[in-house]
Amino acid sequence: MKIVVVGGDAAGMTAASQAKRLLRDEASITVIEQQQWTSYSACGIPYWIAGDTDGPEELVARSPEQHRANGIDVRTGMLATRLDPASSCVTAEPVAGGPAQTFDFDHLVIATGARPVTPPIPGFELAQRVHTLSDGQAAIDALEGRHPRRAVVMGAGYVGLEMAEAAVSRGLHTTVVDAAPEPMMTLDPDMGERVRRLMVERGVTMRMSEPVTAIESGPDGLVALVRTSGGEYPADIVFAGLGVRPRTELAAEAGLALGGHGGLLTDPQQRVLGCDNIWAGGDCTEVVNRLTGSRMCVPLGTHANKQGRVIGLNLAGRDAQFPGVLGTAITKFADVEISRTGLGESDPAAVDLVAATVETGTRAGYMPGDSPMWVKMTAARGSGLLRGAQIVGGPGAGKRIDAVATALWAGMTVAEVVQLDLAYAPPFSPVWDPVQIAARALLSRLD
Amino acid sequence: MKIVVVGGDAAGMTAASQAKRLLRDEASITVIEQQQWTSYSACGIPYWIAGDTDGPEELVARSPEQHRANGIDVRTGMLATRLDPASSCVTAEPVAGGPAQTFDFDHLVIATGARPVTPPIPGFELAQRVHTLSDGQAAIDALEGRHPRRAVVMGAGYVGLEMAEAAVSRGLHTTVVDAAPEPMMTLDPDMGERVRRLMVERGVTMRMSEPVTAIESGPDGLVALVRTSGGEYPADIVFAGLGVRPRTELAAEAGLALGGHGGLLTDPQQRVLGCDNIWAGGDCTEVVNRLTGSRMCVPLGTHANKQGRVIGLNLAGRDAQFPGVLGTAITKFADVEISRTGLGESDPAAVDLVAATVETGTRAGYMPGDSPMWVKMTAARGSGLLRGAQIVGGPGAGKRIDAVATALWAGMTVAEVVQLDLAYAPPFSPVWDPVQIAARALLSRLD
Repeated sequence: MKIVVVGGDAAGMTAASQAKRLLRDEASITVIEQQQWTSYSACGIPYWIAGDTDGPEELVARSPEQHRANGIDVRTGMLATRLDPASSCVTAEPVAGGPAQTFDFDHLVIATGARPVTPPIPGFELAQRVHTLSDGQAAIDALEGRHPRRAVVMGAGYVGLEMAEAAVSRGLHTTVVDAAPEPMMTLDPDMGERVRRLMVERGVTMRMSEPVTAIESGPDGLVALVRTSGGEYPADIVFAGLGVRPRTELAAEAGLALGGHGGLLTDPQQRVLGCDNIWAGGDCTEVVNRLTGSRMCVPLGTHANKQGRVIGLNLAGRDAQFPGVLGTAITKFADVEISRTGLGESDPAAVDLVAATVETGTRAGYMPGDSPMWVKMTAARGSGLLRGAQIVGGPGAGKRIDAVATALWAGMTVAEVVQLDLAYAPPFSPVWDPVQIAARALLSRLD
Repeated sequence: MKIVVVGGDAAGMTAASQAKRLLRDEASITVIEQQQWTSYSACGIPYWIAGDTDGPEELVARSPEQHRANGIDVRTGMLATRLDPASSCVTAEPVAGGPAQTFDFDHLVIATGARPVTPPIPGFELAQRVHTLSDGQAAIDALEGRHPRRAVVMGAGYVGLEMAEAAVSRGLHTTVVDAAPEPMMTLDPDMGERVRRLMVERGVTMRMSEPVTAIESGPDGLVALVRTSGGEYPADIVFAGLGVRPRTELAAEAGLALGGHGGLLTDPQQRVLGCDNIWAGGDCTEVVNRLTGSRMCVPLGTHANKQGRVIGLNLAGRDAQFPGVLGTAITKFADVEISRTGLGESDPAAVDLVAATVETGTRAGYMPGDSPMWVKMTAARGSGLLRGAQIVGGPGAGKRIDAVATALWAGMTVAEVVQLDLAYAPPFSPVWDPVQIAARALLSRLD
């Protein structure tokens, strides 16, 4: 069986590795990857730039050589330029130039990932992006070459916050600008406001509701200024973290099924809708939200890995499914942890939700290291079914979202969440876990 | 309505407070408490002794005066000595001496807690206990008066580990002795062994399978030596953390229903079996294990609080139930976190379990602060239903048990645990959460 994989990061290489492990010599697997790296952690790039970890090798979980040693034919530096589903072949060209090559397949896996949003702002090319390992290296070079003092971060979402953390930890005076009224728009605005205030307390200048209108260079040609609708901010380095969109041109030109967010549409087995032998996974696809049934794009390595595993198992004749997502996510800024799952009040799909927010501590109040945390929880009016939660707080706060996500997955009511047997000891929790304190507050609102 | 509560800590005061909040002037509530404190955190005592927090006031969540201000008649320093269910009255005597008093009730709440195990070992009275705030003060006095260099901790369970941590953090050379072959017998021995090795690496002398045979004093009358079946250990201070037993003499003499572990038996409303108007909660009761249906004693403030809330709601005419426990628990020694839930392989109720253990990291491998952690997970052969998990590992490891406990509560299979949407970002987790790495390993054993 000839398997061709386009894209050599999380979804693609996991699919290839899983299939190879099960099919062994029955499968010949070729991976076409535009860059020089495979299986790398894009989500680690902000921490590399912060100086928390070395790069780029440290961020590579498995190199092309390691994959080749496992019997996978990895072709790096090759860009897939044409897909012909009818004749089951893919054409690819060396990025460095040279003749195109055609690869026949019995099964194709599309794992082309996402590309960063590039707004039509004059001078945007002066901003550092943090999407690929090459981007990361360029940012490191800029930091080490120019020794900047002032950073502007465009975007106050996950990557924006992580880049603000990186800039602050490098001692830069840091300004975050965003067109949105609060940071972290995957939270409700009241929780986003807490994030903003905590970031300001930690020394970041937060300029919200200020779309960037231009980035300007100085006489030396280097970046010097970020101009917004509300002001201008001198900058020796500018980072852009404006989100990503599925990279699906190849699929679109081949007529494959795309959704409203531009991602490939698949069935739960990760087979592209309408195709027999074309599979897709990772950031180039849309996933189903288990709570709403609607499709969304959630570019996260953990989903890409799970989907790659599902594809690999199915290529080997198993019947594996990716069951959809809840929209669980986590990040941090300095000592502030931020997480979410499910539906918030401001979610477009939120109908007849009841919400409650509590302020509590991460530990017993008398323990050192106890720090404030806020939990906002939502439920469906009437049924009392848990619908989601958002957490902002000190060390130990964020991963508590996992208990909520698990309860949500199981379809629990808020009353059940109050009853759960969660782990208690003074260094870890108040005597009622913060998640349950929120559930109690929500329960009394539901009554 | 006259409500009498015997015992003024977590279960008793929560029941009293909840009932008062709902019933207001309809209820006259009297609490009989032997000590001078109410609503205190016994689980905080090791951290007080460690010097992490001040005591004893810091450990009191709500003082007798605060409860009185809420309209609850708190009688401290009074020991309940006789209960007459037929005539609905309780007799109590001042601990300091004086005439007995009789309290009539329409409803009685028994929340007499537990008392520490006192083994028949010569010289055991030389050991410091850490059960009450008075015990804590005595331990502090001994530490500050004598400036000990060598500590022996009897018992390698939760409190033993916490006292070992306290002793080490005070700079004492610390030896832990226990009759059991490994510490933390609520874990399987293989996980207990990891705990032991990690404690040894952190400087503790661990003497397992050595029952204490005597504690001896020196010429000054102060503790000097702990003698075991296998050796003798000079000690300037000795701590005993040998577990507790329900304190149910009052109930037993009144003929109330006790279980095989000596705890009061209640229905899910927390009404004592066979009684109309007598309720019980907290460490003096037995709880139902949701997985096995059997009763057990789990002396934990979090259960006592939940049961107290259930009693208070029921006293006010609601219909609340305590739904049983999974045996979820957590503790730590220095930077080593330890947690468990459900059934392990060595649990007497474990029938036809399959187990898998994985070693993973707490964070992405390239992140600073990533440290090793082990997850052991069990499932029912055949059904693949999750049955339990045990975790040992660095900071961030322990509270991951909550996601497992929630999945267990919901009756999930191990296959479902693999699919859960748990929170991922490099500072918080590998790309597959350790809980899901364990679930994957277990799933492949189940296949």
